[in-house]
Amino acid sequence: MASKYVYFFGGGKAEGRSEMKALLGGKGANLAEMTNAGLPVPAGFTITTECCADYYKVGKKWPAGLMEEVKKNLATLEKVSGKKFGGSKDPLLVSVRSGAAASMPGMMDTVLNLGLNPDSLKAIIAATGNERFGWDAYRRFIQMFGDVVMGCEHHDFEHALQGVKEKYGAKQDTDLTADQLKVVVEEYLKVVRKDTGEEFPTDPMDQLAKAIDAVFGSWNNPRAIKYRQLNDIRGLMGTAVNVQAMVYGNMGNDCGTGVAFTRDPSNGENKFYGEYLMNAQGEDVVAGIRTPQPISHLESVNKTIYDQLVGIRNKLEKHYKDMQDLEFTIEKGKLFMLQTRNGKRTIFAAVKMAVDMAREKLITPEEAVMRIDARQLNQLFAPIFSADDLAACEKSGNLLTKGLNASPGAACGQIAFNADEAEAMAKSGKKVVLVRIETSPEDIGGMAVAQGILTARGGMTSHAAVVARGMGTPCVAGAGDVLIDYSKDQMVISGKTFKKGDWISINGFTGNVYGVKIEPKPSEILQVLDGKLDPKKSDLFQDYSQLMAWTDQFRKLGVRTNSDTPNDTVRAVKFGAEGIGLTRTEHMFFEGDRIISFRRLILVAETVKKLRDEHNAKNLDELKAACASCGKCCTEALEAVKQYEQALAELLPLQKNDFVGIFKALEGRPATIRLLDPPLHEFLPHDDAGQKEMSEKMGVSVAAIKQTVEALHEFNPMLGHRGCRLGLTYPEVTYMQVTAIMEAAVEIKKAGLKVQPEIMIPLIGNVNELKNQRAVAEEAIAAVFAKANMNKTQIPYKIGTMIEVPRAAVTADEVAEVAEFFSFGTNDLTQMGCGFSRDDAGKFLGEYVKLGIYDYDPFEVLDQNGVGKLVQMACELGRKARPDIKLGICGEHGGEPMSVEFCHRTGLNYVSCSPFRVPVARLAAAQAAIKEKKAGKGTPAKTTAGKVSAQTKKGKIMAKKTAKKAPAKKVAKKAPAKKVAKKAPAKKVAKKAPAKKVAKKAPAKKVAKKAPAKKKVAKKAAKK
Amino acid sequence: MASKYVYFFGGGKAEGRSEMKALLGGKGANLAEMTNAGLPVPAGFTITTECCADYYKVGKKWPAGLMEEVKKNLATLEKVSGKKFGGSKDPLLVSVRSGAAASMPGMMDTVLNLGLNPDSLKAIIAATGNERFGWDAYRRFIQMFGDVVMGCEHHDFEHALQGVKEKYGAKQDTDLTADQLKVVVEEYLKVVRKDTGEEFPTDPMDQLAKAIDAVFGSWNNPRAIKYRQLNDIRGLMGTAVNVQAMVYGNMGNDCGTGVAFTRDPSNGENKFYGEYLMNAQGEDVVAGIRTPQPISHLESVNKTIYDQLVGIRNKLEKHYKDMQDLEFTIEKGKLFMLQTRNGKRTIFAAVKMAVDMAREKLITPEEAVMRIDARQLNQLFAPIFSADDLAACEKSGNLLTKGLNASPGAACGQIAFNADEAEAMAKSGKKVVLVRIETSPEDIGGMAVAQGILTARGGMTSHAAVVARGMGTPCVAGAGDVLIDYSKDQMVISGKTFKKGDWISINGFTGNVYGVKIEPKPSEILQVLDGKLDPKKSDLFQDYSQLMAWTDQFRKLGVRTNSDTPNDTVRAVKFGAEGIGLTRTEHMFFEGDRIISFRRLILVAETVKKLRDEHNAKNLDELKAACASCGKCCTEALEAVKQYEQALAELLPLQKNDFVGIFKALEGRPATIRLLDPPLHEFLPHDDAGQKEMSEKMGVSVAAIKQTVEALHEFNPMLGHRGCRLGLTYPEVTYMQVTAIMEAAVEIKKAGLKVQPEIMIPLIGNVNELKNQRAVAEEAIAAVFAKANMNKTQIPYKIGTMIEVPRAAVTADEVAEVAEFFSFGTNDLTQMGCGFSRDDAGKFLGEYVKLGIYDYDPFEVLDQNGVGKLVQMACELGRKARPDIKLGICGEHGGEPMSVEFCHRTGLNYVSCSPFRVPVARLAAAQAAIKEKKAGKGTPAKTTAGKVSAQTKKGKIMAKKTAKKAPAKKVAKKAPAKKVAKKAPAKKVAKKAPAKKVAKKAPAKKVAKKAPAKKKVAKKAAKK
Repeated sequence: MASKYVYFFGGGKAEGRSEMKALLGGKGANLAEMTNAGLPVPAGFTITTECCADYYKVGKKWPAGLMEEVKKNLATLEKVSGKKFGGSKDPLLVSVRSGAAASMPGMMDTVLNLGLNPDSLKAIIAATGNERFGWDAYRRFIQMFGDVVMGCEHHDFEHALQGVKEKYGAKQDTDLTADQLKVVVEEYLKVVRKDTGEEFPTDPMDQLAKAIDAVFGSWNNPRAIKYRQLNDIRGLMGTAVNVQAMVYGNMGNDCGTGVAFTRDPSNGENKFYGEYLMNAQGEDVVAGIRTPQPISHLESVNKTIYDQLVGIRNKLEKHYKDMQDLEFTIEKGKLFMLQTRNGKRTIFAAVKMAVDMAREKLITPEEAVMRIDARQLNQLFAPIFSADDLAACEKSGNLLTKGLNASPGAACGQIAFNADEAEAMAKSGKKVVLVRIETSPEDIGGMAVAQGILTARGGMTSHAAVVARGMGTPCVAGAGDVLIDYSKDQMVISGKTFKKGDWISINGFTGNVYGVKIEPKPSEILQVLDGKLDPKKSDLFQDYSQLMAWTDQFRKLGVRTNSDTPNDTVRAVKFGAEGIGLTRTEHMFFEGDRIISFRRLILVAETVKKLRDEHNAKNLDELKAACASCGKCCTEALEAVKQYEQALAELLPLQKNDFVGIFKALEGRPATIRLLDPPLHEFLPHDDAGQKEMSEKMGVSVAAIKQTVEALHEFNPMLGHRGCRLGLTYPEVTYMQVTAIMEAAVEIKKAGLKVQPEIMIPLIGNVNELKNQRAVAEEAIAAVFAKANMNKTQIPYKIGTMIEVPRAAVTADEVAEVAEFFSFGTNDLTQMGCGFSRDDAGKFLGEYVKLGIYDYDPFEVLDQNGVGKLVQMACELGRKARPDIKLGICGEHGGEPMSVEFCHRTGLNYVSCSPFRVPVARLAAAQAAIKEKKAGKGTPAKTTAGKVSAQTKKGKIMAKKTAKKAPAKKVAKKAPAKKVAKKAPAKKVAKKAPAKKVAKKAPAKKVAKKAPAKKKVAKKAAKK
Repeated sequence: MASKYVYFFGGGKAEGRSEMKALLGGKGANLAEMTNAGLPVPAGFTITTECCADYYKVGKKWPAGLMEEVKKNLATLEKVSGKKFGGSKDPLLVSVRSGAAASMPGMMDTVLNLGLNPDSLKAIIAATGNERFGWDAYRRFIQMFGDVVMGCEHHDFEHALQGVKEKYGAKQDTDLTADQLKVVVEEYLKVVRKDTGEEFPTDPMDQLAKAIDAVFGSWNNPRAIKYRQLNDIRGLMGTAVNVQAMVYGNMGNDCGTGVAFTRDPSNGENKFYGEYLMNAQGEDVVAGIRTPQPISHLESVNKTIYDQLVGIRNKLEKHYKDMQDLEFTIEKGKLFMLQTRNGKRTIFAAVKMAVDMAREKLITPEEAVMRIDARQLNQLFAPIFSADDLAACEKSGNLLTKGLNASPGAACGQIAFNADEAEAMAKSGKKVVLVRIETSPEDIGGMAVAQGILTARGGMTSHAAVVARGMGTPCVAGAGDVLIDYSKDQMVISGKTFKKGDWISINGFTGNVYGVKIEPKPSEILQVLDGKLDPKKSDLFQDYSQLMAWTDQFRKLGVRTNSDTPNDTVRAVKFGAEGIGLTRTEHMFFEGDRIISFRRLILVAETVKKLRDEHNAKNLDELKAACASCGKCCTEALEAVKQYEQALAELLPLQKNDFVGIFKALEGRPATIRLLDPPLHEFLPHDDAGQKEMSEKMGVSVAAIKQTVEALHEFNPMLGHRGCRLGLTYPEVTYMQVTAIMEAAVEIKKAGLKVQPEIMIPLIGNVNELKNQRAVAEEAIAAVFAKANMNKTQIPYKIGTMIEVPRAAVTADEVAEVAEFFSFGTNDLTQMGCGFSRDDAGKFLGEYVKLGIYDYDPFEVLDQNGVGKLVQMACELGRKARPDIKLGICGEHGGEPMSVEFCHRTGLNYVSCSPFRVPVARLAAAQAAIKEKKAGKGTPAKTTAGKVSAQTKKGKIMAKKTAKKAPAKKVAKKAPAKKVAKKAPAKKVAKKAPAKKVAKKAPAKKVAKKAPAKKKVAKKAAKK
């Protein structure tokens, strides 16, 4: 049990500080900080999150000492405010608010106007001279307290209120007079009696104690638990409770309330941004009954207050060095600050603000880099609608409605009302927007092919939203105005009817839905990268370039890309990739006619292998000689050998060409090329039609094909005949692939360009496999070199392996003797290490994360504690055996920020990820390095302490070198931020895309509104 | 390069010793040892195996200094023998023989009579006065040297010889006169000229150098490489070369040659055993042209020599302390010993000799235990034919032929000539003996259902032999007299015709084939264990019991059994199991009607789970309450819950009964019971008929069943929804199973018996899984205890886990916090650790072992270097977190001797294996402990040094305790060996089973005969 549970703030000073967020919650810590900074904050006190933890420890009871502390602080509060809590003369009323270290808006409980009872009500009326205000406050208090603390049914209150309104013919709550509100209070008190069998408490201290209990209790309500799960909030002690003197914005026209951001949260512009309403409560700003005014308008209404507010804005931004989200109230001409916190922002705003603030010297470049949420970064590259298109569309009345901006990006397509339809339409070449009331896992197929997804129900964390974000597909969710009638295959929005096949457009940045076809454009940054927009004309690109230049300056990890084609490679290089970490050569086998060649090879491979075994022949030449002389081999067998050779001969030049293209695109950067990996049956058709087609194309009987398909069937193909196991069985394929790689390299070299091929043998579990395949590869290389009259000094190749089989990880010292590099295939390492089939585990992994077995889906975020241990072990063993071994990762995790941080800590040389994630990886790598530096002056993480320090140093040097030649940095240098043209049209697109309305309410609030406990939550969210 | 390459022996002393086997080869070391022991050994010298290694190192050339050493030793040899090498007066002739540290009979090259040329030939004839002998020796030398050293075609010599024989009308080689042999020599010299273009060398030194070259070269001939692979001979430097003065057994009637064993190699009787022929060469003893005499007969022929031989026999056995396999030659009334080595023996003989020798104090009990090949031990339990039955059968002329004793055991069945037929017959309830010319992998199905396998072709290492031994199926291979005509579905043996369906019997111990039905009997030991034979009447059982008592005395590892039924458990306990290491509860789900109950559960499980999720219900009661009140759940949903509960209620008492039976059978020993493990789809029928049957039995539509089957389909079921993942998804199943276990335990306890249940949660990869399932289990246990008014002190249960997922191994410290024991599931750990699907890897694992990627199939012998590392890691981490954690293994490896040794070294507490392998494991565990003690005074292996010593001590204590109460020991004590009745009929069975003819030629020789290079090899095997 702690020695101090309560921290006071008020009267110009506070016991807390903003650094005490963990203990006081975000709200409490910032209220204290603002108080200390001399800002006008209503006095109050914060009960610590530790107290909440202790509350649960002792069985949901107040821990010893808490009551005394509360009473003492309440006394201080009375003293500072000069009022008496629930007193009968200008009484002190308080709000009781939750406030955890992480923002969980609307998830926990809040009670306002606490301390009201018949006596204090009279006093309030006397003090304010506003009877209606008094009774309105009282009825609100009863409803809120009754609901939150006493567990009354919300709808009973609604029902009672409705009855009174009907009785007096009042349309709005505001139409009710003071006397009518008295009736409401009477009815409310009846509701409390009926629902709880108790009287509504009149003792203020009793009210306070119960409210504090309720807030503590709300920490573990299912909604809050779920929210923390979904938003990945963990490791908190509990919620703090803030008890604060009430101030009122609705006491008259010299009162008001507002919400503001110190900069524009949608585009990042350095401009005071916000809205306010005079004679209103916070609730009213959000509720939308009255239209709030832009904050700048306040200047003309009350210049003193406005100037004071601007001063506070400046002070707070300087103080917190970040954009602040403020809440304020004006009570009888006096300004009170009720909250400040770092404001939520779009990625566009985040990038601009971070770079601007660094330019303003408000923060350092390191801090600027740390400001960006790496997981959000690639929203920068999502397709957008052009501002002109949107303007035209809105002008012509085609903006239909607005839902939640659930997954960023612009999409346009023809409507499909179910997943099968979507798949069918997509198959026939149509662009589809899938429109559903809600989506469910069965819709995955349709979601995958859709350009965008629109749902009528569900919040930011609904199935549609989560899956769409995962897929990178634009999604507008919970657009309540969309009325879908599946039976008629149509929907109605704002009176307009849309049929299946009609065109719509959705903007995942804003949540806007348009009833016409608007062609999405590539993002501004892509336009620049693709040479379609002058970089000087794009502020966004300038900011992005500056940011990325900084990341290259700070990061130690190299960043490569996974790419199988020249096009992808070009794109990745533009995104800053320093090479290829993984080229999957089998993808090339599927293209065009070559699948026929490869299938021919598969069909005869087994026969050839058997013959070779029979004749004890080391290679095809020996086999052919033996076959010819033994006399036993029938023509059919010799024909198989011929076909085998023919297939290899057909594939060689095709593969070579692929590699030439990739090497060219890399402009001298290294390329790790993985040899054939998947099981052979993946290349064969499994349905009758496909087999028949193959039979016709190849002149082989369907029966023979069926037989091969059956023979290649495996119970667990993941653990079957694949990877290097194929190369061991069919060494000619390895020989052909390596020949193709090296012949391509020779061609590049002869053209006077640099080339660095890295040949990667997949699925090694045992060093002997690698020895075997390395020997085949070296033989092929020697032959190519001999023919080209070249050697290793001209084409410095490497041979290495994937580490993806657990056995390879634990015997990595042996493997490293034969491997010049390791590339961690963390997808397979996760499959085998955790025993999860990626194709099957979906059935239970959701449950696993829900139950907290794994913190994250281990296929999305590297399981550092388990699979990560294997990676660390392999790194240590590998480096011990070969100190200069190159270590990288090429699994999906290579572009996932938390996993990138792990790779940094583990001392890998590089991460590799898909082209679009390259910037994400660069950013995450820089953040990891900065974090490490902050934590312990650049010493590596505990897990590998002392073992990788040499490497880390080396990494540093490498990182510096990289930074020097990183193209992005140059761009940034050439285009100083100040010169940016403010009116460039492209810029507008980016800036306008995230609509202003979003900024008004944090997305989470919106979630709350759509969540089952709808109104209740909303009400709580709208505190003050 | 070594400093000494050649070791001399002769003239009463030798430079070598028997301990120098690695350097001098077995033959060389023993020749030296015999020389030093004063035995009459022809003098000679041995070129070391190290020299062979150096020979290869310098590129198949003689290493520097070798020539000088050879010349020096040759000079000494001349001095000692008083003869001149290839000289023209009583010349010295030598044999040049290979001899590696491990016996590789017939695999490498040998040249006899070296030093002969026209001059020395004349001298030999002069010295012996035997012209025919001289010319015969010369023509043999030319043929052998021409073939082995010069690479002439063997059949060219045969052809030449045949020509001469035909010319002179000679039927046998022996019919040729000296003059005719001269012609043969001329023809042979022509062959050499023709095949090589060279003259046959006449310089003896030239001959010697070339012969030594040839022997070195033969170390790496494909035959020898293959033999080492097949017989698992590894780590040798090469072959030694023995150059030894020739002695001749065929110079006249005062000459002779023989082979003997110091004890009977087939039954172990302490009796001089062997055969000899006067005026003959070694070849003649083997060739079968003349019938050899039993060794005892020599006494009457030449008592002096016989007595000398018996003296040598006694001396050698005392010296080597093991049964010796001797070769001797009598030259002109003088005895020469040519070889001694430890003799090959049947397991019956091995057990008897080991125990006898220990009783005779010739060896210690430790040594006796080390003498038995643990891999052979369970041949003791294979079915046998009774001696009476065999005698009757042989008397009536029904012993048809004899093949190789390829896989031990007696089998009797109706003939099937192909695998499909065999399967069909077995399906219709018939007992089948599969008869094939040779078997191939396609025959596996038929081999698996057959009682026994008989093949006409193929040696001890043929497909049939290897597979049959693996399956434990009796097999007689390579019975050349069996003439099979597939087209007629019949075979002819010795003129008798057998049709498909006719009865035959085969004896895998002897290779005998009988043309009648002989009912196999259980092995003698099983008869005793099953109470059908008085232990006092079985010498074999007495010896076995004594041996096993010793193993229990020496071993530190506990031995448990894998058993799912009371019957198996009873058997295992009789075999010495100290508990159950693995009961697979799912096996019980398949029995009788319960599969219906379980299928019912599977059919509704998903619906129930969905409902539970929807209602956020923690258990079924909560769910039912929620369903009842929510009003949304349809009757169908509620029906699903009802069915789910019903299925669980049906299964509970059935499972409980299973456990009661097993607990009873264990008589208080601990039982590790694994909860449900396999994926659910394994329990459902996948074919239409099965689904229809299920639909009818359960009153569910076929469509619904099909849907569930489809929904449960997995791409990689090995890595899918199974093990604890099922328990996490369907906690009620865990609850039911644990309830059944504990209710059974309560019942046993209430009956006044001891019970130690150990609940094992399978497939843990993450400690959180275990926490979850442990909580469910503890809840169930608490409920059972509460109902029974009992507690943990009365029923000391444990909860632990399998370690079979690599992730669990590397996070074993975390897992151990929640697990009281680990049981290594090395089957799955191998699958996931190596990335091999057990069901699929067969396709390439053979190739893998052949290529030397893995030394053994990792599913047969634990992959110590890889999977073993995970095991060691888990042990260390586990013990660190929980020092008293119990560690065991329950994979198939638990009964494999090399793997058992690994488990011992790693400091496990116990191994667990199938009942029949329990004695094997006990023996292997004892051998491991003795080996360790010998190596380093009982310190544990390097890998876990210092970490498990505390454990090891504990293990010792445990082992002693176990030994004290081991029933087998008691039996041994009660029946002192001396009292054993010699004429007990049961004993005869065991003794006679391994036929005497086997002893005559080591099995490997037989292999050589049937191998492609048939005659050539045979000739070499028959040296002297």
